[in-house]
Amino acid sequence: MTALRLHYSPGSCSLAVHAALEEAGADFEAVRLDLAAGDQFTPGFLALNPKGRVPVLETAHGPLTEVAAILGYVAATHPEAELAPADAFGLARMNAVNAWISSTVHVAIAHGLRGYRWADTEQARADMAAKAVSNYSKCFDLIDRDLAQGPWMLGHAISTSDFYVYLMTRWLPRIGLDTTPFPNVADHYRRMCERPSVRRALATQGLS
Amino acid sequence: MTALRLHYSPGSCSLAVHAALEEAGADFEAVRLDLAAGDQFTPGFLALNPKGRVPVLETAHGPLTEVAAILGYVAATHPEAELAPADAFGLARMNAVNAWISSTVHVAIAHGLRGYRWADTEQARADMAAKAVSNYSKCFDLIDRDLAQGPWMLGHAISTSDFYVYLMTRWLPRIGLDTTPFPNVADHYRRMCERPSVRRALATQGLS
Repeated sequence: MTALRLHYSPGSCSLAVHAALEEAGADFEAVRLDLAAGDQFTPGFLALNPKGRVPVLETAHGPLTEVAAILGYVAATHPEAELAPADAFGLARMNAVNAWISSTVHVAIAHGLRGYRWADTEQARADMAAKAVSNYSKCFDLIDRDLAQGPWMLGHAISTSDFYVYLMTRWLPRIGLDTTPFPNVADHYRRMCERPSVRRALATQGLS
Repeated sequence: MTALRLHYSPGSCSLAVHAALEEAGADFEAVRLDLAAGDQFTPGFLALNPKGRVPVLETAHGPLTEVAAILGYVAATHPEAELAPADAFGLARMNAVNAWISSTVHVAIAHGLRGYRWADTEQARADMAAKAVSNYSKCFDLIDRDLAQGPWMLGHAISTSDFYVYLMTRWLPRIGLDTTPFPNVADHYRRMCERPSVRRALATQGLS
């Protein structure tokens, strides 16, 4: 038995964790869920995560949820991969980027794709979907500004935040955007796509 | 000069950080912002946090943003207060609770109070505000279930997550809810309100 099991759905936010696990050289097994078929609501999966969401990382100590928390755990348990700053302030900066992506950036695009989470009427969902485009774009203004210092989100060294930003960038076309207005994001995405870790995660998930 | 400066607005999510700083016995100064007056959009504040949000914790190394990240930093830099588990898995569990609160629980109630972030029409905001009540309530079903194991969010020891849950509980009346359906939350809230750290933070912020 491998030490870790990642429960994922293809192309979802679990892809950020999947690529980070590959980058860390982790010994893990990837378990695919079909969200359209409701795999996330089976009793077995709800026992791992009562929230019914991916990703879940099963560890020897129990299951972990939430991308930001799992990314921190992968970095902490694979220190040789140097995916997180070693000092408390640097680590908190990484956690701040990842917390912001999960609470603001991911939430911004979710209003374009999964508006039913927050409103019941078609009209409200259409309003939210329209505003999601400008909200998501504003998030990338900030990301592009951070990457101008670059080459990575935290500066000279790659970290888990780069895998999370990669995933958010990959999602731009889902609401009709692309990297044209964000040159530093475009360059970052190109470099991330070339990494063997990202390629392996995509291949396992059946994505290109 | 004190080592840390917390920029807060009274009763906002910065209160969770404020109380945790008190609990940690941190040497810090609290700086009040008037959000209604637009203090968060002054050039000076935007230089600290381009996102224009509280809280910001200024440190000797630079500013930190995002409640979940700042809570982790306070715990890491004040280990004698034991506000975070010492092992990687326990720490990740705490970070998962805090990431979920910031990305899901806080976001759920924000749809009742600050719907303008995600929609422009009055009708959409009314729809979101109605659904926010049931969404926030569902979050507390999960929190109440976690606290049934208690006495604290992570089990036998208090952690930063308890200060974040305290704050979310304090907000229940803002959208017409209370702790009646959540007995374990009610008991947890009562215990948190009695802590000298919480009382000091409330007093500094001019709240009761």
